[in-house]
Amino acid sequence: MSTSAAATTHDRLHRLADAARVAGIDAVLVAPGPDLAYLVGHSVPSHERLTLLAVPAAEPGDAVMVLPALERGGWEGSTAEIAGIRFVTWLDGEDPYAALLGELGGAEPGTAAVDDHLPFLHAFRLQASRPALRLQPAGELIAELRMRKEPFEIDELASVGAAIDRVHRRIGEWLRAGRTENEVAADIAAALVEEGHRTADFVIVASGPNGASPHHEASDRVILAGDPVVVDIGGPNPAGYNSDSTRTYLVAGGEPDPELARVHELVRTAQRAAVDAVRPGATAESIDRAAREVIERAGYGEYFITRTGHGIGLEVHEHPYIVAGNTRPLEPGMAFSIEPGVYLPGRFGVRIEDIVVVGDNGAKLMNTSPTELVVV
Amino acid sequence: MSTSAAATTHDRLHRLADAARVAGIDAVLVAPGPDLAYLVGHSVPSHERLTLLAVPAAEPGDAVMVLPALERGGWEGSTAEIAGIRFVTWLDGEDPYAALLGELGGAEPGTAAVDDHLPFLHAFRLQASRPALRLQPAGELIAELRMRKEPFEIDELASVGAAIDRVHRRIGEWLRAGRTENEVAADIAAALVEEGHRTADFVIVASGPNGASPHHEASDRVILAGDPVVVDIGGPNPAGYNSDSTRTYLVAGGEPDPELARVHELVRTAQRAAVDAVRPGATAESIDRAAREVIERAGYGEYFITRTGHGIGLEVHEHPYIVAGNTRPLEPGMAFSIEPGVYLPGRFGVRIEDIVVVGDNGAKLMNTSPTELVVV
Repeated sequence: MSTSAAATTHDRLHRLADAARVAGIDAVLVAPGPDLAYLVGHSVPSHERLTLLAVPAAEPGDAVMVLPALERGGWEGSTAEIAGIRFVTWLDGEDPYAALLGELGGAEPGTAAVDDHLPFLHAFRLQASRPALRLQPAGELIAELRMRKEPFEIDELASVGAAIDRVHRRIGEWLRAGRTENEVAADIAAALVEEGHRTADFVIVASGPNGASPHHEASDRVILAGDPVVVDIGGPNPAGYNSDSTRTYLVAGGEPDPELARVHELVRTAQRAAVDAVRPGATAESIDRAAREVIERAGYGEYFITRTGHGIGLEVHEHPYIVAGNTRPLEPGMAFSIEPGVYLPGRFGVRIEDIVVVGDNGAKLMNTSPTELVVV
Repeated sequence: MSTSAAATTHDRLHRLADAARVAGIDAVLVAPGPDLAYLVGHSVPSHERLTLLAVPAAEPGDAVMVLPALERGGWEGSTAEIAGIRFVTWLDGEDPYAALLGELGGAEPGTAAVDDHLPFLHAFRLQASRPALRLQPAGELIAELRMRKEPFEIDELASVGAAIDRVHRRIGEWLRAGRTENEVAADIAAALVEEGHRTADFVIVASGPNGASPHHEASDRVILAGDPVVVDIGGPNPAGYNSDSTRTYLVAGGEPDPELARVHELVRTAQRAAVDAVRPGATAESIDRAAREVIERAGYGEYFITRTGHGIGLEVHEHPYIVAGNTRPLEPGMAFSIEPGVYLPGRFGVRIEDIVVVGDNGAKLMNTSPTELVVV
């Protein structure tokens, strides 16, 4: 909403256009969602009425937003408007695909890069409107920009990281034997907002055997004394940057699983090994390897059933993915999670997760709450 | 989660396969979202890891769900499982597109119908895995099923309609001069949940000149005495069926716009004319026409800038759309909104919206709160 935001938009559109020209792409088509928010500081819900930002590679200054007439009001005074993007509206009953292609001008684009998130139906109709147009995914093109965070973006990640750390440090207020996972999760969700998140995007409270499923959310299971509990929580701050941090707690009393302390320390060692492996030039898969080797050497390799991490920023999951096969070298400014785990079916799970940003000399941690096995 | 839910899934998969065969389609590929929820009573968030339900047209009993291994746990005991759908999991690093195509069996599908909501990237990669496969949108195929509500679905729409009516009847608790639109909207959102919605999906509070923008949501504008206020609210009930109802209120005191009473009565007459035009065999566009004629005859045609309505069910916006050009004849069980409006730029807007279901002899109203200009 400011001239500095408009300057950011201007800069990002030009960098996107530069990358598109190098890739032989004539226009980039950006749909509502995180890519649009990245480029113009604002997005809208995606629905059956087409909204698309078209960025001509040759002339990013001629970028045009095609959108339903009844949504034009929502963009009054927006960064997109201040940055000089032209708005072309269409009415119910009109053909927005033809209008979009018409706006792309005399030199018809031969190859358009299409936002990964664009619903298939819109891509299909666009293709039907101009069968000769070659469509290819725009995701990596935009990901190349989004992946390297600018200094103000790292500040946002640090600030929302501190917010989620405050929630973890307060866990003893809510997590105790006799309560259900859902009850604990509801309290944590409220605390996320109290501590500065716009919404509580996800709150995983996975107690006892539920912890063995990496994507278990929360249930009516009553938490017992002696349960290990995986708490994986996060959400966006008002600027849209996300937190994501996991700690595994032990509920006081009862008879904890005899393997718990050992497995927890193993995961902690693996997580630290991966953090220590981060430096510019190391490949994404080498970070995964660093965590996995520790767990494999201890004989638990088959119980580490996920990748080690995912990029984070305006989306909770984005590039770069920290996974076997991703040979991309890390660069300063890349931000991602490091979250190895051990999942013992029917018994329990342990996961420890921090967000890191690649610095010139190694990882900068966005999370600093204790990683020891905290008893609550 | 019951055998009756599994019977519904079985029935819907077979009806979808029947329709696919008639359309010359070999397999239908359904993505996370409302179509998946409709077919198997359960969905999951869509993300960069591929989840797809593949329904072979020749053998719907061989339907297979391809999904990330770490999400398998979330489907334990699900209707999909009880209905006999086979689960095929893939691990990070594996190619889910090849796995999916492999599962579709010996007779390679030549034409696959793809969920409208599937992100472009997944469709592109699927196509790249088998260039000869012809992809086309599945939306209308599934919409044909979803559009005609079954009796239990009409019961859900009636029940969630009664819930939103209760919120409208309580509007005097929150809407008054001196409060901001955002403050009023927050109270209404809480009331939606109190009255039986799972979440408050949208809460539009558009006061004074903000009412002239059909998609204005809520702002920091302080509501004044004499303001007309468009309140357009709704959300899903626990079963996933949505409410959506609009009333335009007048805030007591002040000097209301001299045209307000007349415009409000005009919109009310137009809305009733459209409701009265509903019967099996009437076209969707004839319902739009019925409302539009009333408004055009009164000289306000240019200020009715939206279509008259949209289908509703598991999505807030679905088929059939009540819009010029949609010549589809209405059939018993179709459910949609009727929401004409007049939007006077810089001054105010009026919209009145009810959900109706087509009955054998005309419209069955799902909303019954008063449509007169209520002064609060």
